Amino acid sequence: MHGLMQNRPLLVSSLLTHAQRFHARREIVSLLVDGRTHRSSWGEIGARAQRLANAMAALGVVDSTRVGTLAWNTHRHLELYFAVPGMGAVLHTVNPRLHLDQIAYIIDHAGDEVLCFDLSFSDLVQALAPRCPKVKTWVALCDESQTPQIPGVAVRAYESLLDAAAPHFDWPVLDEQQASSLCYTSGTTGNPKGVLYSHRSTVLHCFAACAADGLGMAARDSVLLVVPLFHVNAWGVPFAGAMCGAKLVLPGPNLSGEAIYRLMRDERCNFSLGVPTVWLGLFDHIERHRESLDLSQIRLERVVIGGSAAPRALIEKFDALFGAFAIHAWGMTETGPLGTIGRLLAQHEGLSGAARHDVQCKAGRAIYGVDIEIFGPDGKPLPHDGVAFGELRARGPWVAAGYFGLDASAVDADGWFTTGDVATVDADGYIQITDRAKDVIKSGGEWISSIELENIAVGHPAVQEAAVIGVAHRRWQERPLLLVHLKPGARIDREALLAWFEGKVASWCRPDDVVIVDSLPHTATGKLQKRTLREQYQGYRLPTDPD
Amino acid sequence: MHGLMQNRPLLVSSLLTHAQRFHARREIVSLLVDGRTHRSSWGEIGARAQRLANAMAALGVVDSTRVGTLAWNTHRHLELYFAVPGMGAVLHTVNPRLHLDQIAYIIDHAGDEVLCFDLSFSDLVQALAPRCPKVKTWVALCDESQTPQIPGVAVRAYESLLDAAAPHFDWPVLDEQQASSLCYTSGTTGNPKGVLYSHRSTVLHCFAACAADGLGMAARDSVLLVVPLFHVNAWGVPFAGAMCGAKLVLPGPNLSGEAIYRLMRDERCNFSLGVPTVWLGLFDHIERHRESLDLSQIRLERVVIGGSAAPRALIEKFDALFGAFAIHAWGMTETGPLGTIGRLLAQHEGLSGAARHDVQCKAGRAIYGVDIEIFGPDGKPLPHDGVAFGELRARGPWVAAGYFGLDASAVDADGWFTTGDVATVDADGYIQITDRAKDVIKSGGEWISSIELENIAVGHPAVQEAAVIGVAHRRWQERPLLLVHLKPGARIDREALLAWFEGKVASWCRPDDVVIVDSLPHTATGKLQKRTLREQYQGYRLPTDPD
Repeated sequence: MHGLMQNRPLLVSSLLTHAQRFHARREIVSLLVDGRTHRSSWGEIGARAQRLANAMAALGVVDSTRVGTLAWNTHRHLELYFAVPGMGAVLHTVNPRLHLDQIAYIIDHAGDEVLCFDLSFSDLVQALAPRCPKVKTWVALCDESQTPQIPGVAVRAYESLLDAAAPHFDWPVLDEQQASSLCYTSGTTGNPKGVLYSHRSTVLHCFAACAADGLGMAARDSVLLVVPLFHVNAWGVPFAGAMCGAKLVLPGPNLSGEAIYRLMRDERCNFSLGVPTVWLGLFDHIERHRESLDLSQIRLERVVIGGSAAPRALIEKFDALFGAFAIHAWGMTETGPLGTIGRLLAQHEGLSGAARHDVQCKAGRAIYGVDIEIFGPDGKPLPHDGVAFGELRARGPWVAAGYFGLDASAVDADGWFTTGDVATVDADGYIQITDRAKDVIKSGGEWISSIELENIAVGHPAVQEAAVIGVAHRRWQERPLLLVHLKPGARIDREALLAWFEGKVASWCRPDDVVIVDSLPHTATGKLQKRTLREQYQGYRLPTDPD
Repeated sequence: MHGLMQNRPLLVSSLLTHAQRFHARREIVSLLVDGRTHRSSWGEIGARAQRLANAMAALGVVDSTRVGTLAWNTHRHLELYFAVPGMGAVLHTVNPRLHLDQIAYIIDHAGDEVLCFDLSFSDLVQALAPRCPKVKTWVALCDESQTPQIPGVAVRAYESLLDAAAPHFDWPVLDEQQASSLCYTSGTTGNPKGVLYSHRSTVLHCFAACAADGLGMAARDSVLLVVPLFHVNAWGVPFAGAMCGAKLVLPGPNLSGEAIYRLMRDERCNFSLGVPTVWLGLFDHIERHRESLDLSQIRLERVVIGGSAAPRALIEKFDALFGAFAIHAWGMTETGPLGTIGRLLAQHEGLSGAARHDVQCKAGRAIYGVDIEIFGPDGKPLPHDGVAFGELRARGPWVAAGYFGLDASAVDADGWFTTGDVATVDADGYIQITDRAKDVIKSGGEWISSIELENIAVGHPAVQEAAVIGVAHRRWQERPLLLVHLKPGARIDREALLAWFEGKVASWCRPDDVVIVDSLPHTATGKLQKRTLREQYQGYRLPTDPD
């Protein structure tokens, strides 16, 4: 027997309509590519999104058409966030920081028919256009007078399209399973894969952003959205902002420490979100201009650090300088991205700074909507004791089931999506990422965390950087090999380095050998390229390997 | 094109499973009917709910079977809240405070096959049993040794059923539209009508309870749940508590000011919910024992006042005595019940106490999920200016579409449910209830609020109580008639009372006549019985009526 409640679908358009009806005056502030500050509101975003939907329809956008963006955080990009899914089409946010080949691949694979770009990307568009034949219309996010001349590309000006469009658009009542937006993961191996969100997943994800134990987003918040709109739905904040009526401050292309600081101060932002790099830039700016800055003008109360592990120093600095609470969150493109969120429990009340920071350093806590579990080498769930670590899997209504244009399911028979991270879970549901699954060393049915060994190694005063990889071992299948790059002028031998691990880790986890190298390979974003190292040391013969 | 996200249904069992997996140690404290304090946890509730599901299955409970309860707020009632919907059956919470005839009608109309009751209701069960032939099993919520002897009724003890049941139960993967629970409205006219909630509506409603701008429920909360589990899902708190992992404190049958105070203090409750009557009892207790109470032991931070309009004095007292923020909320059985919730906006920061209390006195603010609108006598939407008042309608995924066992739809062609309240909405979405639709006076196509005129009348020093009703008028269809009950010894004539309205309300809204009466009729819960008055004055001839 079914319940007798109203069967109203969860649609992106319902978020905007709510904002327009009940938070119409709440501000949206953008710094544009041309340097101007633009002040708008949820009411205006709602009105312009209707014009935009009519303009898109005139360009031939219909149900499920993919509309791509190469754009910074501005009010226009925000309008696209609502208008495109609202009309039943799919917003495809492309990361302009990827390599040209990847961008061309992604736009072509997604089948984008309209591509909207900020003026900063005119050169990129010129290079892309010949390689993206499916794109019928290129739209520059600017006024008519600013329309760039790009040889061989007919460019339409966004504002002219809006001016020509009718003001009223009736958002269709869609199936909530309808696709709403598309983001590609920039995996380190193979081609990028597209995660195709639905209206349902998007709205449900908003609830987690607005939950008191989630990001706690509320109407009173003035949110500095540093995380780009081209990074996994900007962590859901544009949609959650509409849901709760928060003020959004969109910084455009300038994410320097100085720009962030100024916006945070001038727009009285109490909440912000970004990756560690951005926050390091902010604190660098503050340190270099400490005497001229009045930090009491900053109203920051909480900040989300995501995208990669938050260094403890960042968490401490937000606390010390602003009295702001750093929320450490874990997630990925395939989880919407909100997966675990690091809020405190009753038992943490009254904790001293350092003890509280210990909790905040964990990678967040399980939230309703994203069920998580860790699995050992035997495929069985592991205890939630904060010690056992295993492959982290996730499932829930805003976790991916597959990838765009790929037939294979992304989930196993029990519905779990394998994240590729290795983690511990404690009794309260806080997780700690201990490794990437592909980097963990599988030794005789047990797992050894490469990251743990690397952290111990860099604790040695002679070591500049360290990498630990698994190499083949006839008895144990794999054993850890430590590669170290010493500090300039430092000297240490193999035995002394191996002895350094004694008492710091179980004896069977200690590296079997050490190689001192002149440098270690890195990716463009500064991460260790362990795949290259594994290839390089594929035939390496460990001294512990039996003949 | 559909999105490629996981298609996991929103089920009540997923709330409990989440709590069991990630908040297992969080406490559930109950005061039982026998006076004992029982300490449990989400882990234990989860484990016992599985046993209970097996026990219910053994009693013949299958898909959609209705299981009724006549019970206070205890851990056992909470277990029923999860086990019954979790297994695909329907939990029907019956209000034991209704008249016997109504209770018998409701249980029979719902078709309850199992009826679980607290020992306080043994006499009631004896009276009900012969009138409820569809009930096959009566279960007393007690140990075997406490099982009541009820002539003619075979009673099973809850704890014995659990002891005999297998410990493991696999919650079925249901359609999220499946009915989960049933509550009857106790309307003032006609038979009670049953609102049949679904798993989907229940889980979505939880998100509103956990939203920062909703009830803000979080894992750190210790929640004193004064609102009964038999009142509209206890305002969603049992489910939201599982979602976020809050501690729940269940006061059992004793809702006296003293009992509430003691629990609030001893269990360090920072959040509570109840109707005005309960809070008046609490403050009465405090005033009578002010010298012996140490109010600094009370940790209350926020409190929800719902069920009927919150007197300003209550809002002020929570602030003055505890520094607690009173959240004024509006809703009804048909809205889950969370409809509007009175949280503050950025513009209210820094408001003085009185100005802030003005905002808190409004009946809450629109939230995402319950779209609201007001409609004038012509059926057209009215402006959101805080002045225009009209019939309040609601729609959304946790608003009723119909009633159990009734064919008629409860919504109009545009999907709106008519609440029966008349309200204003301001530009920020705050509502104020100005009248019940049936009490508003329809004068020449305009509406006059009976409550506004009554409030003005009782402001006169001679007036004890006032009622305003519409009586027939040949020119204006209806005009207001004021009925007043004077204070003991007070004297005032008709002209002086009419003059009292000058300048306080538009001249066309003023009453046309006054009748001084010895008393006014009230319902059992103390509300004015305007229907009786309308019948009594049906033929009343107003002096303004043209011949």
